[in-house]
Amino acid sequence: MSALLIIAHGSRRAESNEEIKALTAQVASRANEHFDLVECAFLELAEPLIPDGVNSLVDQGAKSIVVVPYFLAKGAHVRDDIPEAVALAQAAHPNITITVSNYFGAAEIVPDALTELAIAATAQ
Amino acid sequence: MSALLIIAHGSRRAESNEEIKALTAQVASRANEHFDLVECAFLELAEPLIPDGVNSLVDQGAKSIVVVPYFLAKGAHVRDDIPEAVALAQAAHPNITITVSNYFGAAEIVPDALTELAIAATAQ
Repeated sequence: MSALLIIAHGSRRAESNEEIKALTAQVASRANEHFDLVECAFLELAEPLIPDGVNSLVDQGAKSIVVVPYFLAKGAHVRDDIPEAVALAQAAHPNITITVSNYFGAAEIVPDALTELAIAATAQ
Repeated sequence: MSALLIIAHGSRRAESNEEIKALTAQVASRANEHFDLVECAFLELAEPLIPDGVNSLVDQGAKSIVVVPYFLAKGAHVRDDIPEAVALAQAAHPNITITVSNYFGAAEIVPDALTELAIAATAQ
């Protein structure tokens, strides 16, 4: 059973965390041919935190987990904090394969998306 | 003359700010039929700040400026700080039209892009 775990920073604002949950649901509906489970977890300030997110997927039967950092820049969270949290989760579940994807801001589609958003605004 | 100003948060890490400048160059090459000028500015921690970014575009002849907040969540920066900075810039340049687009995280293409990134990671 394969799983996708979207990692966001987490916010003190409940609405920001709800945005991530809504986005996760949108991704789940698009990715259901590739992932049996699609959930989100937060680096800090919101729940579930990364270890709990991984535990939840493993409890549901996940054997492989792709972790996608939903961050725009390769700051300390992407370089250090998420890999460290994932390494701990991997150590806790040695029989599960956990893969960390590139962070969202590095996706090739980002410049296209940003261009599209800007052009749409000229029609406002 | 029409301009696009991409607003990022700004970071103490020079590399993160350079990432934004590289992204801005990529957007410029895609958006050149729609915008004569494409530049970036930062909310804090890096230069140019928003007022300087707007001034630079106006000095180069921009009559209309689309501002795109390159942020993932509708936090205080997107709700309050960027609109405030733009309102000040607008007041300083009453003959220029400044439009703020939706923030990047709200772009319709984001769930598709995130899904694509996750699926690509399964092939790693």
